[in-house]
Amino acid sequence: MLNTLIIGASGYTGAELAKMVHLHPHLHLAGLYVSAQSLDANKPISELHGQLKGIIDLPLQPLVDVAAVVESADIVLLATAHEVSHDLAPAFLAAGCQVFDLSGAFRVQGDSFYSDYYGFEHQHTHWLEQAVYGLAEWNSDAIKNAQLVAVPGCYPTASQLALKPLLEAGLIDKAQWPVINAVSGVSGAGRKATLTNSFCEVSLQAYGIFNHRHQPEIASHLDCEVIFTPHLGNFKRGILATITAKLLPGVGEEQVAAAMAKAYQHQDEPNAVRLLGGQAASIQNVVNTCFCDIGWLLQDQHIILTSAIDNLLKGASSQAIQCINIRNEFPALTALV
Amino acid sequence: MLNTLIIGASGYTGAELAKMVHLHPHLHLAGLYVSAQSLDANKPISELHGQLKGIIDLPLQPLVDVAAVVESADIVLLATAHEVSHDLAPAFLAAGCQVFDLSGAFRVQGDSFYSDYYGFEHQHTHWLEQAVYGLAEWNSDAIKNAQLVAVPGCYPTASQLALKPLLEAGLIDKAQWPVINAVSGVSGAGRKATLTNSFCEVSLQAYGIFNHRHQPEIASHLDCEVIFTPHLGNFKRGILATITAKLLPGVGEEQVAAAMAKAYQHQDEPNAVRLLGGQAASIQNVVNTCFCDIGWLLQDQHIILTSAIDNLLKGASSQAIQCINIRNEFPALTALV
Amino acid sequence: MLNTLIIGASGYTGAELAKMVHLHPHLHLAGLYVSAQSLDANKPISELHGQLKGIIDLPLQPLVDVAAVVESADIVLLATAHEVSHDLAPAFLAAGCQVFDLSGAFRVQGDSFYSDYYGFEHQHTHWLEQAVYGLAEWNSDAIKNAQLVAVPGCYPTASQLALKPLLEAGLIDKAQWPVINAVSGVSGAGRKATLTNSFCEVSLQAYGIFNHRHQPEIASHLDCEVIFTPHLGNFKRGILATITAKLLPGVGEEQVAAAMAKAYQHQDEPNAVRLLGGQAASIQNVVNTCFCDIGWLLQDQHIILTSAIDNLLKGASSQAIQCINIRNEFPALTALV
Amino acid sequence: MLNTLIIGASGYTGAELAKMVHLHPHLHLAGLYVSAQSLDANKPISELHGQLKGIIDLPLQPLVDVAAVVESADIVLLATAHEVSHDLAPAFLAAGCQVFDLSGAFRVQGDSFYSDYYGFEHQHTHWLEQAVYGLAEWNSDAIKNAQLVAVPGCYPTASQLALKPLLEAGLIDKAQWPVINAVSGVSGAGRKATLTNSFCEVSLQAYGIFNHRHQPEIASHLDCEVIFTPHLGNFKRGILATITAKLLPGVGEEQVAAAMAKAYQHQDEPNAVRLLGGQAASIQNVVNTCFCDIGWLLQDQHIILTSAIDNLLKGASSQAIQCINIRNEFPALTALV
Repeated sequence: MLNTLIIGASGYTGAELAKMVHLHPHLHLAGLYVSAQSLDANKPISELHGQLKGIIDLPLQPLVDVAAVVESADIVLLATAHEVSHDLAPAFLAAGCQVFDLSGAFRVQGDSFYSDYYGFEHQHTHWLEQAVYGLAEWNSDAIKNAQLVAVPGCYPTASQLALKPLLEAGLIDKAQWPVINAVSGVSGAGRKATLTNSFCEVSLQAYGIFNHRHQPEIASHLDCEVIFTPHLGNFKRGILATITAKLLPGVGEEQVAAAMAKAYQHQDEPNAVRLLGGQAASIQNVVNTCFCDIGWLLQDQHIILTSAIDNLLKGASSQAIQCINIRNEFPALTALV
Repeated sequence: MLNTLIIGASGYTGAELAKMVHLHPHLHLAGLYVSAQSLDANKPISELHGQLKGIIDLPLQPLVDVAAVVESADIVLLATAHEVSHDLAPAFLAAGCQVFDLSGAFRVQGDSFYSDYYGFEHQHTHWLEQAVYGLAEWNSDAIKNAQLVAVPGCYPTASQLALKPLLEAGLIDKAQWPVINAVSGVSGAGRKATLTNSFCEVSLQAYGIFNHRHQPEIASHLDCEVIFTPHLGNFKRGILATITAKLLPGVGEEQVAAAMAKAYQHQDEPNAVRLLGGQAASIQNVVNTCFCDIGWLLQDQHIILTSAIDNLLKGASSQAIQCINIRNEFPALTALV
Repeated sequence: MLNTLIIGASGYTGAELAKMVHLHPHLHLAGLYVSAQSLDANKPISELHGQLKGIIDLPLQPLVDVAAVVESADIVLLATAHEVSHDLAPAFLAAGCQVFDLSGAFRVQGDSFYSDYYGFEHQHTHWLEQAVYGLAEWNSDAIKNAQLVAVPGCYPTASQLALKPLLEAGLIDKAQWPVINAVSGVSGAGRKATLTNSFCEVSLQAYGIFNHRHQPEIASHLDCEVIFTPHLGNFKRGILATITAKLLPGVGEEQVAAAMAKAYQHQDEPNAVRLLGGQAASIQNVVNTCFCDIGWLLQDQHIILTSAIDNLLKGASSQAIQCINIRNEFPALTALV
Repeated sequence: MLNTLIIGASGYTGAELAKMVHLHPHLHLAGLYVSAQSLDANKPISELHGQLKGIIDLPLQPLVDVAAVVESADIVLLATAHEVSHDLAPAFLAAGCQVFDLSGAFRVQGDSFYSDYYGFEHQHTHWLEQAVYGLAEWNSDAIKNAQLVAVPGCYPTASQLALKPLLEAGLIDKAQWPVINAVSGVSGAGRKATLTNSFCEVSLQAYGIFNHRHQPEIASHLDCEVIFTPHLGNFKRGILATITAKLLPGVGEEQVAAAMAKAYQHQDEPNAVRLLGGQAASIQNVVNTCFCDIGWLLQDQHIILTSAIDNLLKGASSQAIQCINIRNEFPALTALV
């Protein structure tokens, strides 16, 4: 049993992680932590997330001294804010822990990326360079040898899983930037009180047009410019990305289907992508699952892809567990299906 | 045209009031005010309530000096917090304005009521005694002569309009306290950022069990003890009250129907109650209307009443306008239907 | 007062039309009709649409004989199925009525359009050629002289109002087809029982990919190919279209703003478009209004437009009334604001 | 491994059962069946319930001949309509299968109950008498020896689990009938196309007032008259029951707490009730769990209980599995937590 800590366990992804670690046959939930300043410190997690009552009633311990907790940890899950992850990860890494970071702190290489999009200068470029991007279906080999896995963002997961097979197969006309329209449930904004997320204010609406930090994350990992427009939707969880791209001349349905099958229908390792062919993906079918559903249709040299995930699971927590499984050579979907 | 001010115009009821005053043939929207400390001060109301854009773009003026604004006002609508209404009303009243207060500051007579339920000692008992309770269908004569109208709360409106005809007719066994279960949309909590009202946290749930301030408001105005249990529902607006009461021996359908008809199907004055007979009231049919729908069924000497209103309209803003209409001898539903 | 009939009055758009005609100072609601076979025939409209109770309780008369009803009509609103409108319109037109058709029966010129997209051969090409497309902000002059107005579809209204100013001004690179992603509330599917529209099955999902009949309606009226992907959203009413287009070289913010202002900020005639500039349109701000809100942002020679309407109002019923107003030289937004 | 069949597997409870049987360490999902006439016959279950894709893709076989399938079954789950369960159960029972019926066909003893409330005469009173009511927390001993378990309805489960501890302890004044107000998600009406359940028609509303078949189910098993008012709510799953009852003179908080603890906080057998004390139950905390959450408060000799379950799980499918576990001496919550 690998001792597993969750730092930042008070939020929605933290609660999902706790449940999955608890049910995992090879992981032991060794501790839940929140910031020492948190008003939730010392409360049982089930007081914040009532659905866990009777299942996980562990307290949210204040993280006062990393050195004191690191001893007990084989694996550390960071479900913390970007800067907090940035600050905390090195100490856990130096102590030899495996670190799986759900924030954006180690996802993208590039000099000005963190100052431009996250508002801080990255101080740990050594670890940034070592970090493996945890898009589980694509980086399995690297994840197996990683000490630090940067679990991808929710929009990037839905977007890349759909586009990457076609880009890798050289089917997309990259000169005409793919258009990604995506709608996320409100839980993507985290567990906090804001007017924007208050029940009466939420309605379908685009935000972060042309300047959302997930745009460069997608573009850099796909090596392809994209136009990415996120939207807030009036539902609690799930993301649907609708992606329109131009195919290179002569590319037809067979090549697309073959590229998808090559990526996701192989015998190497179980994965969490379900191919729907001509059927459209829907949020309902993926919510509360670890899956990404992908459908596609072609016409007039264009392709429209639909890709759906649970933003808290394949877009965060279950993908982190999938990475843990791969890293530790458990079957990739252990405790997820 | 009567010059009408709205104080506390930034909230949901304020926006509804602004729209109705704007459309009213005999009222002139003379000014919108918010607290001088409000972060919304000087913004156009349509920046907060985008649906008003192009219709009402007046600024939310900071209320610095009541004396300076009172001059321009014939009518003042207070859509302010309870204590703010308590503090502001006397100055407007002293200047001769008609004041329609949507808060709880002048609704209930009784020594310890404000300290027990609102957390402050009432300083204006003179005005409290003069205040007329604006349950429009029942207090029409008093409203006609009132200078200060305390517009009822949302739950009390839905509850009283259903029960009062039966109590007035002496049909209810008051020894067995009527049970009022009511569910309100989230807008009832106002326009503000709280974790409780954040989109992902809202789900059907009782609150304020045995200690909600609307319980004594209902009981005192009905002169009948009741058990009142409010619930938060996952919808934006509307209230449904389901009321179970015991009838006195021998009371049957005819007497109930007669009592309802006597209360609401007369030629005296148009009113905002729609009688559904044996059909159940639903939120959908009253949202965005000024109406209260009431249905009822009898069995085994019990009656179940269902009563639905829009909490922001008949439960607040349209009832205030209805009171203005009655007070100024306009047809009661002017600008409301 | 112009006598106005509503045919197909049982649905959601019919109910909205009834309310607006009822409130209109120059229209008289002369009759509500449904198919003679309808199970709703002879019921009061308020039995189907409870929110109308006490306001409009007229019966839904079975339409047995057009000749018998045509006498009483100056204006006919057809809120009927496409083929029904196709079959009924000529008789009303021959009798001299003004006909405003909310179906697709007279919207698009072109030989095979109706057989390809609506499954029937058009039999009334004479009237089809005479029909004026009722995109109110753009076809005002033609509407003034029309006898038959084909009110645009909901998606086409949201899409065209955003794109047309830019296309008319020659700012868009039409070689790279604009991508329109739009999400509609469930009321767009009409008032009927289907598994797809049942509460538990609805979740955000694309449909009609590459083959929705609104694609050619948009493309033919804009004279520009577009890629249009409609989605079903989990809300009752409203449409949000997010549109991505490539601008011609050298086109910048000023030219876009000028084109928008020219189209919608003039003194000629009041219109129902509200320009938001750099702010994103949201469904909440347009629901229950007659408005189309349009926002836009530019970057890297691309523009992203967001356009929101109430699908039942600006996408159907209020646009029909707007056309009636224009046709009869009432102020264009009479009874709408 | 016990071979387990699910009859009526196309609905929401069927899909939940399939998932739980699939994950159960001691059960083998031996077949999914639907009526031979069903349009869904021969489709994979994952075509109807997309969330099962890749997990359970078994076909929904048409049930043509019970004799042919009975051979392969140790356990039969009937998720069928009341009359279908009534007709099918005896053949499975005669063949020696354990039958767990999720319909109302074997829940209530009493001569005229089925003709009064279900519209058919019961033909299998022998089995009706033998049937054990599967309220798992209360009938454990009988379930252990049962061949036919009638799994309780969703409303009765939420209601009885809250009231039964107090009634068994003799704390309730039965002369004043407890008032049960309950709100159910739309999935309670099953997977079918009706106007009532269509997305745009659903809003909070009472139904079945004074004549819902769950009222006598509750009353007969509690041996206490109750007033039960069910409501439809605008959410997919979950039930919240708010129950108001009068306590006998002298009953206080301690006795209530002791009765609850005696019922649910013992060492005999794990159960699916979580006691919340003075906190109110909410739907969010129980959805997608097997739990019933119960909270309560006292005042003036009255008690208000709130009780929440997932209507498809503790109100149907997980309670059926809980009964299977008890019957076969597996830990009661096997495969449920």
